[in-house]
Amino acid sequence: MITIEAIKPEEWSEAWKIMQPVFATGDTCAYAPDITEAEAFAAWIKGSEATFVAKDDHGALVGIYYLKINQPGLGSHVANAGYVVSTQARKRGIAAQLCEHSQAEAKRRGFLAMQFNIVVSTNEVAVKLWQKLGFQIVGRVPEGFRHAQLGFVDTLVMWKKLV
Amino acid sequence: MITIEAIKPEEWSEAWKIMQPVFATGDTCAYAPDITEAEAFAAWIKGSEATFVAKDDHGALVGIYYLKINQPGLGSHVANAGYVVSTQARKRGIAAQLCEHSQAEAKRRGFLAMQFNIVVSTNEVAVKLWQKLGFQIVGRVPEGFRHAQLGFVDTLVMWKKLV
Repeated sequence: MITIEAIKPEEWSEAWKIMQPVFATGDTCAYAPDITEAEAFAAWIKGSEATFVAKDDHGALVGIYYLKINQPGLGSHVANAGYVVSTQARKRGIAAQLCEHSQAEAKRRGFLAMQFNIVVSTNEVAVKLWQKLGFQIVGRVPEGFRHAQLGFVDTLVMWKKLV
Repeated sequence: MITIEAIKPEEWSEAWKIMQPVFATGDTCAYAPDITEAEAFAAWIKGSEATFVAKDDHGALVGIYYLKINQPGLGSHVANAGYVVSTQARKRGIAAQLCEHSQAEAKRRGFLAMQFNIVVSTNEVAVKLWQKLGFQIVGRVPEGFRHAQLGFVDTLVMWKKLV
């Protein structure tokens, strides 16, 4: 069982501890593997509409997501979100729960759709999960991601109508 | 004949005078039709890698473009650009010249590709021009743009390999 709620300022340090190792692998997220804590804070807290964290039964932080406006102005009815699950808490359905929560939160805020701009095509677990949760692949950018092991790989644009 | 060069701080006011009427139509750019000068400055000057302006024979400002990193970190080899041509200077090939210039500038800065994230599908003149200049449609987002006259219309992701 996990609970998902808005991040509290004092939880950022713990959140960064689970984010940094995920970014460092360079195989799933666009952020630089050596992204600094300040840069991550700017992207995930200062630059987002909202940030939520998932906690397990013991109160340990196991995941985090941000919710943003994907484009300004006349594209602002589309939300964007990003997710990180602790490497210690995989295969427990936490990413799915974060994604479902973010969709509900986006709807609550009046967004009509959700879009992911840079899903790494070789991250099959993620692609399949987003598809299972109703997202469609609506675009494929050739060599959009510089994968730490595989070199340049395609990225996907994925989209779901929420309302 | 036009010349294209990096914008000087004292040219922003003139640039905003040609940008505002284009954004106000709400049919081609994601920016809100009532975007403020400060918001435009944040997006086009503060938030960009570089901003260039086109001037005609008389030194009048007739177009502007920005160049940005499309995604941080492992997506940062892809550039993004946006263009505005004065409504008084259409059908003179200025958009094409701005786009060609932005590609050369992106290459000079080490970018390997260029991507447009939200090309309004009903803006046929633009879509055809970008295709003529070598961009491919690599994605189509349903109802990604709230068109001032047409309501929700699809948006295109367009991409070109530069190197």
